Amino acid sequence: MNQNISVAVIGLGAMGMGAAQSCIRAGLTTYGADLNPLALEKLKAEGAKGVSQSAVDFAQELDAVLLLVVNASQVNTVLFGEKGLASHLKPGTAVMVSSTISAQDAQQISQKLTGLGLVMLDAPVSGGAAKAAAGEMTVMASGSQQAFTKLQPVLDAVAGKVYNIGEEIGLGATVKIIHQLLAGVHIAAGAEAMALAARAGIPLDLMYDVVTHAAGNSWMFENRMKHVVEGDYTPLSMVDIFVKDLGLVTDTAKALKFPLPLASTAFNMFTSASNAGYGKEDDSAVIKIFSGIELPQKKGA
Amino acid sequence: MNQNISVAVIGLGAMGMGAAQSCIRAGLTTYGADLNPLALEKLKAEGAKGVSQSAVDFAQELDAVLLLVVNASQVNTVLFGEKGLASHLKPGTAVMVSSTISAQDAQQISQKLTGLGLVMLDAPVSGGAAKAAAGEMTVMASGSQQAFTKLQPVLDAVAGKVYNIGEEIGLGATVKIIHQLLAGVHIAAGAEAMALAARAGIPLDLMYDVVTHAAGNSWMFENRMKHVVEGDYTPLSMVDIFVKDLGLVTDTAKALKFPLPLASTAFNMFTSASNAGYGKEDDSAVIKIFSGIELPQKKGA
Repeated sequence: MNQNISVAVIGLGAMGMGAAQSCIRAGLTTYGADLNPLALEKLKAEGAKGVSQSAVDFAQELDAVLLLVVNASQVNTVLFGEKGLASHLKPGTAVMVSSTISAQDAQQISQKLTGLGLVMLDAPVSGGAAKAAAGEMTVMASGSQQAFTKLQPVLDAVAGKVYNIGEEIGLGATVKIIHQLLAGVHIAAGAEAMALAARAGIPLDLMYDVVTHAAGNSWMFENRMKHVVEGDYTPLSMVDIFVKDLGLVTDTAKALKFPLPLASTAFNMFTSASNAGYGKEDDSAVIKIFSGIELPQKKGA
Repeated sequence: MNQNISVAVIGLGAMGMGAAQSCIRAGLTTYGADLNPLALEKLKAEGAKGVSQSAVDFAQELDAVLLLVVNASQVNTVLFGEKGLASHLKPGTAVMVSSTISAQDAQQISQKLTGLGLVMLDAPVSGGAAKAAAGEMTVMASGSQQAFTKLQPVLDAVAGKVYNIGEEIGLGATVKIIHQLLAGVHIAAGAEAMALAARAGIPLDLMYDVVTHAAGNSWMFENRMKHVVEGDYTPLSMVDIFVKDLGLVTDTAKALKFPLPLASTAFNMFTSASNAGYGKEDDSAVIKIFSGIELPQKKGA
């Protein structure tokens, strides 16, 4: 089994950088592309075969592309914009689209790639930066058997768990969006509960301790409300990411004419936080939409 | 240290039975009271010193009382109703009120007990029937140091973790209510996400598997959405319990004039489920408020 394929990771943010490092560690010939020169330098120093602000520079060398940019607009720009990558790839190159996008966008992108003789895997990921760095992301993927087979070495390198949801492009995107519904509602619910605790005079560190040892806990409560307890809103993932992702959730529901009472409320809470000027803070800053409470301040701040 | 105090556990449901068994196992002289004769027989067979439909029958023997009835109305009936227990207890007897009730109710009950020379611990619990049976409930308690000291043998017997939230009666109740905010929103959010998955054609067992291996997970999602995947709505904890508990959450918010966008929405979802006839089913049956979807059926049903 020849695992030594050539892969370009495009979008070297928290998730993409970790995925690219995992590809290098797995022995793949790895290229990296990002607009940020610092990210390129870092990946080059860690053993990338080549780095560039445009993956077109090494398009002809590639067997596979892994896209971890922020949204569908960026996916489209990278692949089909001016100096778009797609038309420079060898026929049969496999493109793994791992950004969180709508099922409709995934289907449109797939049609354009197919028209150019390329193969797409609709493959959003979860797990956060730590799992990405460890090569242990959770991948929820749909696509042809051919796409899965061609991308197997990349999946082996970056994923701890791969869910094969089916052949139809869009199913992967939908599963990720439903996952984000839960993630977003859980952060907003954590914020709402901690805000009420602050209003009722319960020390937030004690409230955090109780919840994380009881049935009211969630992965997001435990991870994000720690930032509230510490008063540290340095962005690991920003409020505006959930404005986008819960926007995709509500778009999905609208397309299916399906009501989502909680997700639409959480969407409104993140949108309110962004509108109040907290869009670039950590997503736990959604708690700042509640007034009349005193929140913990960062130590030494 | 003389641990051999006499305690009556009142309310032998899922939690109370486990707590009473834990008291017997810890060597306490244990009495049990419940309206259900089968529960009394069961506890007697397991080593209770005495059982009765009315704890007044052994009131003079008691050093401590643990109340695990359903709501504040039942607490008041047991303690202060016709043939109420409180006026029959020896002065100084410690009463641990572990039902989920409002802070206002806890304060009113405390005032009445104090007037009779009794000592109260405001001590709601979490953990479910399994933890209760193992003597490992989480207790979130407030009250005087005297109350904690007198109830220490009971706390040792029934609790895996005891949080001392402060001296003020009502703080324990408030922490539990905020905990229930999260628990209730998480069940409703799980139902909303699984309903959307059903509508979008995602197999629910696969959706469950993805979420429970990713950052969208919660304790309640993992525990309750399993019932949806299996199509089994046999009540472990009923829809109507969350109609009550989220009602307490909204009462608390109203008293503090504090907005709770998600909890009020989840309250409405559980109320809708109860109104549609699902009040006595497992709380995961809140998913049945969504129409136009096909849910898994119980195997063999």
